[in-house]
Amino acid sequence: MDKITSRENPLIKRAVKLATSSKHRRAEECFFVEGARLCLDAVRSGTPIELLLYTRRGSDRYPEAVETLREAAAKSVEVDEKIMATLADTETPQGIACLCKMLDKIGGAGTIKKNGRYLALENIQDPANLGTTLRTAEALGIDGVLLSRGCCDRYSPKVLRGSMGAVFRLFIKEEEEFPAALRRMGQEGFCTYAAVPAADAVPVTAAQFGPKTVVAVGNEGNGLTETAVAACAARVTIPMLGRAESLNAATAAAILMWEMMRRG
Amino acid sequence: MDKITSRENPLIKRAVKLATSSKHRRAEECFFVEGARLCLDAVRSGTPIELLLYTRRGSDRYPEAVETLREAAAKSVEVDEKIMATLADTETPQGIACLCKMLDKIGGAGTIKKNGRYLALENIQDPANLGTTLRTAEALGIDGVLLSRGCCDRYSPKVLRGSMGAVFRLFIKEEEEFPAALRRMGQEGFCTYAAVPAADAVPVTAAQFGPKTVVAVGNEGNGLTETAVAACAARVTIPMLGRAESLNAATAAAILMWEMMRRG
Repeated sequence: MDKITSRENPLIKRAVKLATSSKHRRAEECFFVEGARLCLDAVRSGTPIELLLYTRRGSDRYPEAVETLREAAAKSVEVDEKIMATLADTETPQGIACLCKMLDKIGGAGTIKKNGRYLALENIQDPANLGTTLRTAEALGIDGVLLSRGCCDRYSPKVLRGSMGAVFRLFIKEEEEFPAALRRMGQEGFCTYAAVPAADAVPVTAAQFGPKTVVAVGNEGNGLTETAVAACAARVTIPMLGRAESLNAATAAAILMWEMMRRG
Repeated sequence: MDKITSRENPLIKRAVKLATSSKHRRAEECFFVEGARLCLDAVRSGTPIELLLYTRRGSDRYPEAVETLREAAAKSVEVDEKIMATLADTETPQGIACLCKMLDKIGGAGTIKKNGRYLALENIQDPANLGTTLRTAEALGIDGVLLSRGCCDRYSPKVLRGSMGAVFRLFIKEEEEFPAALRRMGQEGFCTYAAVPAADAVPVTAAQFGPKTVVAVGNEGNGLTETAVAACAARVTIPMLGRAESLNAATAAAILMWEMMRRG
C-alpha cells in the first residue's frame, strides 16, 4: 500500500478515534498504541496487531522494532510524519504506532487464582493514577487487579504509557458489579479488605495480608462507595502520622500492595 | 482599588509570569497560588500574602476564605472572571488566587533535626511526581525533604496542587550541592542510603531504617547520579517480584518512606 499522506484516509480517521475515544475503543474492541517499546510489549504479550503505522523516520530509527511489528501485524502502512504527529499524544512521537485487539475480548483473560493476592480499584478517574498503579502491581508481583466499570479506560494512551506496558501482561478483570465481585471473593474464602481513611479501621501493619487476599481502594476524591465497603469483611487503613488528611490513591494502593507482598 | 478588567494591568502581567515561569519565581522570590484551599493553607502556614486576587463569583462562593485572605494580604483586588480564567491552570478556577513570598527566603526554613528521618530527591522532573511525594512525606510524618537544584520547581502551580499544600508545611531544603549534602549528613552520623534498582543492594526490608536516616531517590528515567550514590554509605533496593523493570519514582519514594516510618 502506498504511503498515507491524508488525514481523511479512513485508516487514519479510525486510528484517531481509537486514540481519543474510550467509547470507540469499547465499541470496536480495539485500541491505539504508540511508541516502539509499547508496541513491542503488545506483540510479546500475544496481543493481535491489526495495523502497524510507521513513518520513514520511525523505521530508520527503530528498524528491528518495525521489522518485528511488520511480521506480527495483519497490515502495515507507512504514514507521513505530520499525520503521526496528530495521532500521537506525546511531544516527540517515535514514528511507530499500532491498532491492537483488546485482550479481554479474545479469551486470554484467565481466572482468579485460589491463593492469589489482588487489588480491586473502584472508580479511579485519573489515567496517571491507574497507569502507575498497574505498573506498581506488576513490579511488586500482585496476581491481578480488578477494576470497577467506573474506572477510567485502561486502554487509553495515557494509562498504557503510565503502566509501562503492564496493561499487556497483568491479569486485569473488569467487574460489572464491583461490590458483588468482592462479596463473591469473600464467600470463596478470600480475606476482603476495604481501604478507608478511618482511625478505627485495622492498621495495615496489623492486617492479615496472607495469600488469598483482596484489598479494595476507591476513587481519588471520595474513596470507596459505602456499598463496596460493606461488601468487604474488614476495613484497613494506613496510619497517618503527619498533618495531611490522606494519601493520593495511587500511593495508598502502592503501600497496601507492598504490605501484601513483603510478608511473602 | 477598582476591579481589574485588562490583561495589560501590571499586576496581572506579573501574576501571569509568576504562574508560568520558574525563572521569574526565583528572581522575584514570589509565587502564584490558586484556589481557596491552597490560599488558606498559605495563610495558615504563615506565608506572607503580597496580593489577593478574587472574582465576584469567588467571593460569593467562598466569602469566609476571601475575608480571611483579605485580612492577611498586603493588598486585595477584584478581577474579572475572564482574567482569572487566563491565570488559573485548572479547568474550573475557584476565583481566588494569591501572590506569596517564598518561605525559604524569609528565614522560616529551620534546620535538619538530629534524629530525623529524611528523603532526598535528585533531579525529579515531573511536577506530579514531586507534588505527590511531598504530600506522601507529610502524610507519613517524614521530618523533611531535601531537593537537588535539578528538581522541578516546588512553587509551580502543579506541584503546589499535587502536594495538597504540603509545600507550605513540610520542611523542604534545596541543596546547591546535593552529593555534598548527603556526605555531610553521613559525617554527622546519619545512615545515608541511595535507592537503586540493583539486585545486590540491601533489600529495603533488611535496611537499618531507624531515626537519623536519609534515603536518596533519583530522577524518573536515570535514577541517582553516580556521584550521589557514591556520597551515600549504603545502597538500598525495593525487591522487584514481578516482570516490570522498576517503579515510578514517586511510588519508590512512597514505599521507602513507609518503611522508614512504620518501624517507629
